[in-house]
Amino acid sequence: MRDVAQAAGVSVSAVSVVLNKKEGARIGADARVRIHDAIARLGYRPNAMAKDLVTGQSRFIGLVADAIASTPFAGQIIHGAQDEAWKHGFVLLVANTEGNQDAEHEAIAMLLEHKVRGVLYSTWYHREVEVPEGLDESDCVLVNCYAAADLPAVVPDEIAGGRDATQLLIDQGHRRIGFINTTTPSPAHDGRLRGYREALAAAGIDLDPALVVEARPEQEGGYDAAALLLDQGVTGIFCHNDRVAMGLYDGLRDRGLKVPGDISVVGFDNQEVIAAHLRPPLSTVALPHYELGVAGVRVLLGLDAPASDGRVLVGCPPVERASIARPAVVPAGDPG
Amino acid sequence: MRDVAQAAGVSVSAVSVVLNKKEGARIGADARVRIHDAIARLGYRPNAMAKDLVTGQSRFIGLVADAIASTPFAGQIIHGAQDEAWKHGFVLLVANTEGNQDAEHEAIAMLLEHKVRGVLYSTWYHREVEVPEGLDESDCVLVNCYAAADLPAVVPDEIAGGRDATQLLIDQGHRRIGFINTTTPSPAHDGRLRGYREALAAAGIDLDPALVVEARPEQEGGYDAAALLLDQGVTGIFCHNDRVAMGLYDGLRDRGLKVPGDISVVGFDNQEVIAAHLRPPLSTVALPHYELGVAGVRVLLGLDAPASDGRVLVGCPPVERASIARPAVVPAGDPG
Repeated sequence: MRDVAQAAGVSVSAVSVVLNKKEGARIGADARVRIHDAIARLGYRPNAMAKDLVTGQSRFIGLVADAIASTPFAGQIIHGAQDEAWKHGFVLLVANTEGNQDAEHEAIAMLLEHKVRGVLYSTWYHREVEVPEGLDESDCVLVNCYAAADLPAVVPDEIAGGRDATQLLIDQGHRRIGFINTTTPSPAHDGRLRGYREALAAAGIDLDPALVVEARPEQEGGYDAAALLLDQGVTGIFCHNDRVAMGLYDGLRDRGLKVPGDISVVGFDNQEVIAAHLRPPLSTVALPHYELGVAGVRVLLGLDAPASDGRVLVGCPPVERASIARPAVVPAGDPG
Repeated sequence: MRDVAQAAGVSVSAVSVVLNKKEGARIGADARVRIHDAIARLGYRPNAMAKDLVTGQSRFIGLVADAIASTPFAGQIIHGAQDEAWKHGFVLLVANTEGNQDAEHEAIAMLLEHKVRGVLYSTWYHREVEVPEGLDESDCVLVNCYAAADLPAVVPDEIAGGRDATQLLIDQGHRRIGFINTTTPSPAHDGRLRGYREALAAAGIDLDPALVVEARPEQEGGYDAAALLLDQGVTGIFCHNDRVAMGLYDGLRDRGLKVPGDISVVGFDNQEVIAAHLRPPLSTVALPHYELGVAGVRVLLGLDAPASDGRVLVGCPPVERASIARPAVVPAGDPG
């Protein structure tokens, strides 16, 4: 700063006033131009940490993520949170724990020592969490998870997502619609099932419990579930996620059935590397990870407020591709 | 710190000495215990930024990544870099650019303002980069990329990876081995091809140029390449990446061929969500993203030195699953 002042022929405090955009300070237009010229010429960069110390505020927002390395989902949360944080002059301090408790403890201590403005605590799949020790020392928003504790939580709207996925099949005239749910107890399990039931009810279709099966939420689960549902005469199948749909494709193919000519399929997640590149490309609903990251920062900075139950629900938009067609055989008298 | 001093009945400077683990300072054992007790009781956290300012060093390492949100690869680089950075008392400042130049410019300015110890500049696929402006103001190591400029670069050993992938097929007795390479000019294109040639040569197999085809490095490319290679009577196919292998599986299936009974397949990347869950699970070689992140930090901190050409090559280990078998028909007189 001293070099800048000397080059511009002004005092160090004048440089400081201009750099820190202090209001009401009387620096002439001439001096301002000379200071900015000198900054550009000298390649001066303010010391962000010194500035934070002086202002008594840090411009960091912490983000604790549990699976940056093992899923593409955490990356999308980071991307959304970073974009929104930068928009408001904040920098994201990212700590990856890969589900390791020691790493999580260390991450939170590190963030608190950097006097973060607050912490986003995020998980790669939507679930209940125990809030880790230390987080109460800072403002905290849960992202893609929630806790019994009274903390704001930004989560995907699983029910509406399940409803919309089922509706994609109903809209094409399907009435016998199977659902391969997950065996894992989770908000996704309960919410997507409720959405499926609601969509059927709204379309006047009776729920047949034999059409709802549970499988491991991976390709292998979808593959094995094919046989169960085909025995029930379904024409369309809603899968708990895209990986299940990928396995189901294989299971149908091994039985000589075509998607969507014989069976229509819809997934959940919009996991790009899978959904967009299956044969045929998979219709699905998107888990809104980017938007969860954005919403988390907005709640943390007080720009958006959660509902009275502390939740912010983020929508899961349908992504239509080519895995749904009208059913081959439409029951007599059916409007579809 | 004042509160800690008061609670422990010592001077502020004594607390500072203990916290900063200054060597040779004379603080009695009693006082040390009292200070640590007071810290625990009061939940005191040192201000990392104030400490950095006083010591004149920051404990940050910057990591610029271009695709956290769109691939799982960047996350693995981050994971490796963070683990290694933490081991040496450094915190990783992660900036995601998603390939956007303005975001990259902003990211680098942000890192420099935080007086990072150095910057890792990483890309999600191995390629040559133009080093962005500003990076010369700090120590810099390129990760998964390289530049004409004289900067250390940590990159995957594409040649050895291509050799090992081809060798997996040779070991099972294959002699007519197809290679679906990418249409994209890249170190992966050239390196994996060279590895394929070297493995064939070492096994005494003449290279047949008709067995090397190029395709878009996605599922669709692999699907379309199936026909070309089947016409050439191959028994095994090395794919540029796992996504190509996934498409090839579909192309083979649509022609009534089984993997590995009729055709053996090997991929490249070990993209977990795909490779481990195909039917059958895909044998492949792993792109070592975690290890690239580790190596980047070690070079930046001067713990490892690059070779005389500025490069550190990181191995791509084979991952054997179930997509390779002995060829159905072994040519007469062939040792396999």
